[in-house]
Amino acid sequence: MIKNIRNFIFDSDMNLILIFKEDFIDEGRRVCLTGRRHEHVLKIHRASIGDRLAVGLYGGGIGVGKIVELDENTLIMDVIFDRKVPGALPLTLVMALPRPIVLKRVLSTVSAFGVKRIVLFHARRVEKSFWKSPALREENLTHQLILGLEQARDTILPKVEMRTAFKPFVEDELPGIIGGTRAFVAHPESKRKCPYNVDHPVTLVIGPEGGFIPYEIEKLQKAGCIPVSLGERILRVESVIPALLSRIF
Amino acid sequence: MIKNIRNFIFDSDMNLILIFKEDFIDEGRRVCLTGRRHEHVLKIHRASIGDRLAVGLYGGGIGVGKIVELDENTLIMDVIFDRKVPGALPLTLVMALPRPIVLKRVLSTVSAFGVKRIVLFHARRVEKSFWKSPALREENLTHQLILGLEQARDTILPKVEMRTAFKPFVEDELPGIIGGTRAFVAHPESKRKCPYNVDHPVTLVIGPEGGFIPYEIEKLQKAGCIPVSLGERILRVESVIPALLSRIF
Repeated sequence: MIKNIRNFIFDSDMNLILIFKEDFIDEGRRVCLTGRRHEHVLKIHRASIGDRLAVGLYGGGIGVGKIVELDENTLIMDVIFDRKVPGALPLTLVMALPRPIVLKRVLSTVSAFGVKRIVLFHARRVEKSFWKSPALREENLTHQLILGLEQARDTILPKVEMRTAFKPFVEDELPGIIGGTRAFVAHPESKRKCPYNVDHPVTLVIGPEGGFIPYEIEKLQKAGCIPVSLGERILRVESVIPALLSRIF
Repeated sequence: MIKNIRNFIFDSDMNLILIFKEDFIDEGRRVCLTGRRHEHVLKIHRASIGDRLAVGLYGGGIGVGKIVELDENTLIMDVIFDRKVPGALPLTLVMALPRPIVLKRVLSTVSAFGVKRIVLFHARRVEKSFWKSPALREENLTHQLILGLEQARDTILPKVEMRTAFKPFVEDELPGIIGGTRAFVAHPESKRKCPYNVDHPVTLVIGPEGGFIPYEIEKLQKAGCIPVSLGERILRVESVIPALLSRIF
């Protein structure tokens, strides 16, 4: 029963309840929640009055919320935010736009890992129709990113930018993004293995399903990216991203 | 159109077409495929007669298949297997049984990474009902593992074992599995960071959603496991596994 509810409604674990300004019903201490967060606390946490839950102020600190009222309709908590969020990853993710269903999972994953800047860009093997997907609407991007924040107990929303033309982006803008960082492009054909534990800010470029075409790899190298691989196995984007992030940091 | 088909029918990329003994229609050179593989080649690869596709002999080498016939019903190829599969990871994954939907994704992921021995075991925070899931039937386990092989161009099926009692498994059997390897248990509360690039066989123990209880961690430590973490962020099992595997190797 519980299992089904959670698979259906919640594609993520709400390890932190994010609190927004609009939730406050007094001067910064008491909040009233309805909808998704209320439902999660009631049905998944199965919490009761007096229970303490991990909370975070959207864009601010994290702390504890004590439940003072909980019924079928609302959740009222007294909240305090007295700790810092986990540190961000010093990494800019520059990713060829994936299929919408993959994009959703990737956004919540990279948000959970603490990536704060994501640039989605076009490449030859990106289907043009992907750029028209509802998954790219701001509210949908934000929803996926928030799932990642809740998972990892973070409160700082990553920024997502979009670049729909490969050449001007890679020629004119990417060198500036790369400036001062180590830049890698994930490229399964590269003989160079992805480095471990890079003690420096990083720009990481990820290709589309099927990879970059040779012209694109050449352009990315000219912009300053070093092609690296995780070995000869072809992995899914959803695996490659956690694999690269945890290896580089 | 293509996008929808692939999301619906295929949850993985068939980067390799696995060939089984039963597929041969002559002495080891010509194969006839129907069903899922035929459909994939027709609708996703959109291949035609004369095209060459990556193939692998189940349990054997990898190579190339040349299409000699392709229609609505069957695919006939001449195959040759002249290369070795990618190397296996020298790692035994010992994992508390996850929710069935998570288990499916994890099995195909670890199979793609080249893990060849997976032990699923019980822990306090594993719901007992999970052990009765159809996902644990041999044909379903095999299906998920094969998706991972196809993704990563491997042909060697991992072995999955199940242990439904925590204590006898961890006390009596785990020390033997660990023998001769470095053993780690993923434990977010550990101050010790997961090591990078371990040049040695590894046993990796992963807990259930919500983690191991203190008694379990103590037992695992007594069996020889070192608790390690990936930092203070709580990550989903689907992210933790690629993260740990690519960092350790």
